[in-house]
Amino acid sequence: MINKLIAKIRETNAPIVVGLDPMMKFVPAHIQEKAFKEYGETLEGAAEAIWQYNKGIVDAIYDLVPAVKPQIAMYEQFGIPGMTIFKRTVDYCKEKGLVVIGDVKRGDIGSTAEAYAVGHLGKVQVGSKTYCGFDEDFATVNPYLGSDGVKPFLKVCAEEKRGIFVLVKTSNPSSGEFQDRLIDGKPLYEHVGEQVAAWAAGCMPEEGEYSYVGAVIGATYPEQGRIMRKVMPKSFILVPGYGAQGGKGQDLVDFFNDDGLGAIVNSSRGIIAAYQQEKYARFGGENYAEASRAAVLDMKEDISQALESRI
Amino acid sequence: MINKLIAKIRETNAPIVVGLDPMMKFVPAHIQEKAFKEYGETLEGAAEAIWQYNKGIVDAIYDLVPAVKPQIAMYEQFGIPGMTIFKRTVDYCKEKGLVVIGDVKRGDIGSTAEAYAVGHLGKVQVGSKTYCGFDEDFATVNPYLGSDGVKPFLKVCAEEKRGIFVLVKTSNPSSGEFQDRLIDGKPLYEHVGEQVAAWAAGCMPEEGEYSYVGAVIGATYPEQGRIMRKVMPKSFILVPGYGAQGGKGQDLVDFFNDDGLGAIVNSSRGIIAAYQQEKYARFGGENYAEASRAAVLDMKEDISQALESRI
Repeated sequence: MINKLIAKIRETNAPIVVGLDPMMKFVPAHIQEKAFKEYGETLEGAAEAIWQYNKGIVDAIYDLVPAVKPQIAMYEQFGIPGMTIFKRTVDYCKEKGLVVIGDVKRGDIGSTAEAYAVGHLGKVQVGSKTYCGFDEDFATVNPYLGSDGVKPFLKVCAEEKRGIFVLVKTSNPSSGEFQDRLIDGKPLYEHVGEQVAAWAAGCMPEEGEYSYVGAVIGATYPEQGRIMRKVMPKSFILVPGYGAQGGKGQDLVDFFNDDGLGAIVNSSRGIIAAYQQEKYARFGGENYAEASRAAVLDMKEDISQALESRI
Repeated sequence: MINKLIAKIRETNAPIVVGLDPMMKFVPAHIQEKAFKEYGETLEGAAEAIWQYNKGIVDAIYDLVPAVKPQIAMYEQFGIPGMTIFKRTVDYCKEKGLVVIGDVKRGDIGSTAEAYAVGHLGKVQVGSKTYCGFDEDFATVNPYLGSDGVKPFLKVCAEEKRGIFVLVKTSNPSSGEFQDRLIDGKPLYEHVGEQVAAWAAGCMPEEGEYSYVGAVIGATYPEQGRIMRKVMPKSFILVPGYGAQGGKGQDLVDFFNDDGLGAIVNSSRGIIAAYQQEKYARFGGENYAEASRAAVLDMKEDISQALESRI
């Protein structure tokens, strides 16, 4: 799957992932009204509105980008109807040829970590049969519990040729509270990154330069990205924090390797709620999906220019 | 909800939580056969088997313990049917008067953390109405992302009078890989614990000695429990790792405060799969729920004796 991601990045010339993190306040009025008319102001109504909203965006951008990253929390808050739409979104994006990164940030130990790995990336056994629960291509994983929490994912990644991105240095302002604390002269995130490099080296596809095991480092911390790029040479870096959180294309060049690969930059509300920004307001709520397409094209241009200018 | 938990601990005289972490290999053959006959060897069939298994255990133990802790991964692996049974289990346990600790170990930032908090402990807005997504009383939370990941939970806890347990020192063998690393002469988990104490002090119920914010420290690390008990005086400690993972009653006394409160000890497979242990094999699979009841009574006795003997 890492090789499919790389092939699609080359094909689209866009190391970009669109974060499908829908909030009701992003969903245009006409979609909400239609869904509530059909299902009432219920969890099912909210889920239907989000599904229609997602579908419009995916239809408008699937040919421009290699991947999407649905944030499961935004679905989970709507209970079972929300989870149902998460799954439908994953399936639909895969039908459209997109690589799906489930932003689930799961982290647990032993048989529990195994259950998460199986549920999101693998197949669960039921009697004599097996089934995919959520069936993403990649998942994000929290490292706080150590190797016991990550190894079950490595096993499933190797078996299913899927991948994970381990949280190393997150994009939020308080990420430093624990992640930046110095241990033997190096910040915690660097120790985590060294461990990611070790996991990555042990979880390579049969062909290709990049591992099934990647890392998350926020666009808001470009200096850390530069250092960690070298610490984890075989790992793709998933870079959140572009756009709404403040990251710009020129901040991101050091997240990439010299081959122009090694990083994929996420933008969520900057794309999916583009029509609510002044820059794309001309599209209006009715044409929110076209606004998203315009925002993807602008983001591609910004990142391309930044990458070209470093040569 | 922390006060309800304390009242129920006093009423049952059992600082015990039963971990509802069902695995198919624990579910007795007669339950699996019946469910597969009705639904086939499908995700729905697996979910039905787990639901019937859970219900049998809850019916057998609800009068003995204050709380249960369903581990969501064990349900999530079965996709939407699994999540549906998770929710049904939460609802059923609450009907039975049990306090429900959702072992979800969620951790994210900003609006995403808010979505998890709302989805598991609060109410989500849909148009002019609000709904509970999963509706647990407590949830476990991962601290790796810092305050940004925890504060949205604190807000919901204060509003809804619910609670969280923040992972401090987990019970697994590799928990030390990051958690034990020394920062300014103290292990990371102690820094996290100090932060938990600060969050806890700011999130107290109107009456009572204990905060809505608790911590997780594994029974397998009693020495750390003793130290952290003093670092977080207002926090209940959720103690996993009793039984199957090796923790014993006598290891646990220092997790408690002098008032006999401040800790609640979890056992999962030691209770729910008791009938598969030699000690309770006489019950057989048909009477698995009675085996679970016997195991709860033995655990109560073990912990009571340990607490009494320290006086």
